Amino acid sequence: MKRIILIIISCFVLQFSPAQYDGYSSNSWENQLEIEDLFLKHIDKTSFKKHLQKLTERPHVVGSKTNEDVIRYIGEVMNKAGLDVINYPYDVYLPKHPGSSLIEIVTPSRQVLNQKEDIISDDPFTKDSLLWKGWNAFSGSGDVTAEIVYANYGRKEDFETLKELGVDIKGKIVIARYGGNFRGYKAKFAEANGAAGLIIYTDPKDSGFARGLVYPEGPYYNESTIQRGSLLTTDFTGDPLTPFEPALPLDGKKKIKRLDPKEAQLHTIPVTPIGYGEAEKILGQMKGVVVPQSWQGGLPFTYRLEGGRSLTIRLKVDQKIDFVRATNVIGTLKGSEAPNEWIILGCHLDSWGFGATDPSSGTAMLLSLSQTLGKLKEDGFTPKRSILIGHWDAEEHGVIGSTEWVEQMRDQLNAKGVVYMNFDGAVSGKGFGASAAPTLKKLLVETSKNVQYPYTDQTLYEFWNKENMSEPPIGNLGGGSDHIAFYMHVGVPSMSGGAGGPNVYHSNYDSFRFYEKFVDPEFQMGSMVEHIAGLMALRMANGDIIPYNLNRYAADLKMHFGNAENKIREYDKEFEGFKLTGEAIKSLKNTSEKLTMKIKSYLEEGNYSKRELKRLNKQMIALEKSFISDQGMYFGSWYKSLYASSDPFSGYAAWILPGLEYEIALKSSNRLEEWDERYSAAVGSLNLKMNKLIAEIE
Amino acid sequence: MKRIILIIISCFVLQFSPAQYDGYSSNSWENQLEIEDLFLKHIDKTSFKKHLQKLTERPHVVGSKTNEDVIRYIGEVMNKAGLDVINYPYDVYLPKHPGSSLIEIVTPSRQVLNQKEDIISDDPFTKDSLLWKGWNAFSGSGDVTAEIVYANYGRKEDFETLKELGVDIKGKIVIARYGGNFRGYKAKFAEANGAAGLIIYTDPKDSGFARGLVYPEGPYYNESTIQRGSLLTTDFTGDPLTPFEPALPLDGKKKIKRLDPKEAQLHTIPVTPIGYGEAEKILGQMKGVVVPQSWQGGLPFTYRLEGGRSLTIRLKVDQKIDFVRATNVIGTLKGSEAPNEWIILGCHLDSWGFGATDPSSGTAMLLSLSQTLGKLKEDGFTPKRSILIGHWDAEEHGVIGSTEWVEQMRDQLNAKGVVYMNFDGAVSGKGFGASAAPTLKKLLVETSKNVQYPYTDQTLYEFWNKENMSEPPIGNLGGGSDHIAFYMHVGVPSMSGGAGGPNVYHSNYDSFRFYEKFVDPEFQMGSMVEHIAGLMALRMANGDIIPYNLNRYAADLKMHFGNAENKIREYDKEFEGFKLTGEAIKSLKNTSEKLTMKIKSYLEEGNYSKRELKRLNKQMIALEKSFISDQGMYFGSWYKSLYASSDPFSGYAAWILPGLEYEIALKSSNRLEEWDERYSAAVGSLNLKMNKLIAEIE
Repeated sequence: MKRIILIIISCFVLQFSPAQYDGYSSNSWENQLEIEDLFLKHIDKTSFKKHLQKLTERPHVVGSKTNEDVIRYIGEVMNKAGLDVINYPYDVYLPKHPGSSLIEIVTPSRQVLNQKEDIISDDPFTKDSLLWKGWNAFSGSGDVTAEIVYANYGRKEDFETLKELGVDIKGKIVIARYGGNFRGYKAKFAEANGAAGLIIYTDPKDSGFARGLVYPEGPYYNESTIQRGSLLTTDFTGDPLTPFEPALPLDGKKKIKRLDPKEAQLHTIPVTPIGYGEAEKILGQMKGVVVPQSWQGGLPFTYRLEGGRSLTIRLKVDQKIDFVRATNVIGTLKGSEAPNEWIILGCHLDSWGFGATDPSSGTAMLLSLSQTLGKLKEDGFTPKRSILIGHWDAEEHGVIGSTEWVEQMRDQLNAKGVVYMNFDGAVSGKGFGASAAPTLKKLLVETSKNVQYPYTDQTLYEFWNKENMSEPPIGNLGGGSDHIAFYMHVGVPSMSGGAGGPNVYHSNYDSFRFYEKFVDPEFQMGSMVEHIAGLMALRMANGDIIPYNLNRYAADLKMHFGNAENKIREYDKEFEGFKLTGEAIKSLKNTSEKLTMKIKSYLEEGNYSKRELKRLNKQMIALEKSFISDQGMYFGSWYKSLYASSDPFSGYAAWILPGLEYEIALKSSNRLEEWDERYSAAVGSLNLKMNKLIAEIE
Repeated sequence: MKRIILIIISCFVLQFSPAQYDGYSSNSWENQLEIEDLFLKHIDKTSFKKHLQKLTERPHVVGSKTNEDVIRYIGEVMNKAGLDVINYPYDVYLPKHPGSSLIEIVTPSRQVLNQKEDIISDDPFTKDSLLWKGWNAFSGSGDVTAEIVYANYGRKEDFETLKELGVDIKGKIVIARYGGNFRGYKAKFAEANGAAGLIIYTDPKDSGFARGLVYPEGPYYNESTIQRGSLLTTDFTGDPLTPFEPALPLDGKKKIKRLDPKEAQLHTIPVTPIGYGEAEKILGQMKGVVVPQSWQGGLPFTYRLEGGRSLTIRLKVDQKIDFVRATNVIGTLKGSEAPNEWIILGCHLDSWGFGATDPSSGTAMLLSLSQTLGKLKEDGFTPKRSILIGHWDAEEHGVIGSTEWVEQMRDQLNAKGVVYMNFDGAVSGKGFGASAAPTLKKLLVETSKNVQYPYTDQTLYEFWNKENMSEPPIGNLGGGSDHIAFYMHVGVPSMSGGAGGPNVYHSNYDSFRFYEKFVDPEFQMGSMVEHIAGLMALRMANGDIIPYNLNRYAADLKMHFGNAENKIREYDKEFEGFKLTGEAIKSLKNTSEKLTMKIKSYLEEGNYSKRELKRLNKQMIALEKSFISDQGMYFGSWYKSLYASSDPFSGYAAWILPGLEYEIALKSSNRLEEWDERYSAAVGSLNLKMNKLIAEIE
């Protein structure tokens, strides 16, 4: 009975007055709660919709006239809101237009396939003259006629299976379905295996009628819906000619040395996407051996591995790659006490079409947020640290704008980058999900308790933690968006999150009309995401000491090393474990707990100067850098984080402890000792920095 | 090193001279090995094919003229092989013909649907004039026109989901896909929920093109393939008018009291099956709310729960039920030493069409086996116990022939029934599977080590135990075939097994042509199954003491009670477990181990008379009867086994400890104490009988 009363009381307390947060003194926390209340009051629930409508009037691919309009609009809104706006231009080597392409069934009976979405009579957006056919940026150019082979998702293991089954793809055109990896790897593996070309389609089992009603009746892909997207698979991220360096304008003062395009790691075979209505015309005529059961898709026949001799396909792509101007827009709300400590939020601005969900729902949310923060500033509540809101260009072509900026600002980010929060298409549905670095997981969880979820009487926390676990599901950061350079190249603790749901990803149907009809007709989700994004930014900005959750490092490291050791033992029975790192993690656990306590009592005593805080916070920022290795990864030295990378064999998936994951992927034991040394040194360095902080605080 | 040598030696020994088996003295075992060698030599590898071809010349539904030909052929073959053949006739209340039926889309646009398989030009079997349209025996008769509702698999939980989703099926026609339960339950639940009629179809995701190539290109259902089958769902098994009693001929001497057909538990709504090509014409026109994701099938559109007002369907069935003569044919090879101890093998003889896989592959195998046993007898190796080979009629309409025979022979089976082995369609593919009572699992495993698997250099054991577990996967006996009455009504330890694979189950395509093309073109599997069936029969027949594996009772009971307790605790946190039964199982473990040792040393000493063995074996036969409860189950008192039943909510699935499973299904705690008492009494009785045996042996 007593226990029940205690639970009721603690619920009550939690709901009405959030528990004091790491890094805050009691006074600061009281102020913070007032600011958070005021922030919520200032959110204009109508502005998300207005911005979204404006941003998505026309398709706005990087380099297009309409994208310049979007860039201008973003700058104007942030400027008017009271932020200092700077544009960061780059000249990036990329295809700004699909060029020409053709898919044709040649035999048994000539038939040219459609490569563009159907016009829907009661959706005027679908008629926009700026909409292009489906295409994959960074395709090779070529014109080939050949037999066809089906390669499932075109993953590494799928091509291995084809080889085992004796299917030769040399000189053939491969058809593969979207899903299972980053599409660029489908092209990479197809080319490596000798294919002459690649057609990528969306299978109805993965995203079409087998999942639910299709557009315009529902939010799933119809037979003409086409996923566009980049194929770039260099062993670094960003502009393909300037690894490690910013692709500053060709006509600018500072000259950047660029690779010769011939040296760039680009595909040479033609690749282009189609919808499943047209794919059916190819797949339905194939005659070879039946696929393994898991390769069967949702079209109404048994899938085959080969088309046979009677079925020949012509695939032609002529795509020009050139230098294209990409422009990031960054608005800064300068910090009142620590302007050189940066809380960075971001979302890209370029799109494959209208981009209503991807990216503009995130852009619209950030624009509304900049206005709300502007009002707070007008009320005299400027955050202590600077809040930067970054709108990145050329993300769709390969996470380029943000990467070039990180490469340009490397030194400043090293010294000033407190956190990067990514909101790519962050209001794309009515679900919620997030991934985060260890030090930021608590921030996500705790702020979610103070955000109301619309359409329910639940908090975001309750909605998100449906399964009632000890923590809601927080993912690991993988590839595919603008956190990559921040987190994996320079080591700024990052997170990525937002609202999601079924949508017509990267297609011409992703318009305001679609959003209104299927994503959030009542436009409630935008301000919900703005609320949590704003609270997280403000909590990170206003803590006396930067509110990283330091204890999480040791807990997560222990778990991930345990997982890695288990995977290694599956192929190496003799492996005795990462002993040095294991010891280092144990020490780190003690040290981080001690430091957390020290910070708490230090703040309680209240006996500190601003200068002292500045010195301590500088060291806080330096902590994550222990995981940044100059040597980087064996699969690509641009990937400098020992802690996380995207999976270099699939592109999207997250690799935690990528040094180890690479050895595991190769089933190699050769470098395990080396990695034990490198990882234990990194954890040891983090431990040392924490001990130094403890000593300084004392 | 030493250990490795030991392993090598033991493998060697195993392979070349099977370890001595339970129930055999050393001498007997040596004899037995000679007999087993000779048995293998006598198998005529060509006879399976000949019998199969003969049996499947024409469709042979129970009561048909062609089925009488099959009955005669079976009797002749066994008679010629040297077995004593007896026919057991019954007059069973069942529909011997589909009658008339019609499925018609009425609105929006009139269309009569096809109800019969397409004729395949290069398969002459498909033109046979005796082939009927698709039908479900024991449908109600009626002519209804109504809107349509899709009910997934028509399981109990599917109808519950429809109710939760607010879909009213009252007065509507339900369309449900095959799979997930016994089809009769689809009709039972549809009728209970107020449906006016039921259409059952096979979805391509479950058995059609989504699984592999379709007939005639491959072994899966094409768009016109129709699963026939009975709908009988009485709360007992067998003839619907004579529960507990044999349906002896109406014109016979002994008069059996029959229920008035009006009292019989029969469906009243019309029910009929179709292929997915025709189902698509209905499902594709539905307009209502989208189905839950797991209800989506393989047809190329999003499935809906309701058809809406504009789609009306007419369903008409006029099916006459009458008394039909069914005849079991049983051949007996009379035992040389213990003719009153019966080893029974069986398979049904009636079919929905040609029945090449189901049942005739099992029939052909048993006919070949009877010839091989006949040759052994000619060589002077008559088995010690009698071997009975039963060919059951009217299985397809509801496991009727075998059940009536068991009811007729109840007293004799109680005294004489050592084991029942079911081989329904037992040579239907190139895979292998089996289910068995605890005392017979070891028999299956050990004999499989002495059988060569064709198309490989593996033994059946190696092939079957692919996963290299401590035991190959042996299932629990569920419903759906002729072991039911033996095992669940009178308590004869039973097993069921054979070779399986993809096939055109219960359709007009299940012909010799289909078998030759897709099941086993080289006709190697028939003699493989004959080999293991024969070895099992001979081992059970020739042991001095019946070779039950007595230790398995306690091990399996402990596991099953543990599982049941876990399931109960999910809804009843207070439940403290089946304490009385737990204690009883502990005692049983000790006793059975002791008895097993005693039998072994008793046989080693060799100091025993045939009369003594007969007395002991009589008690061995009585052991399993401890699980036979006169009161039976609450869901149907005909189900008398406390150990196993078919699931009364789905028909096919196995319920182990059905007394408990029923409480669990109802989430009830009311009768748990009662069941603890009943189960502990049963286990106690078994324990007592074993202790008595120990005492007698001493």
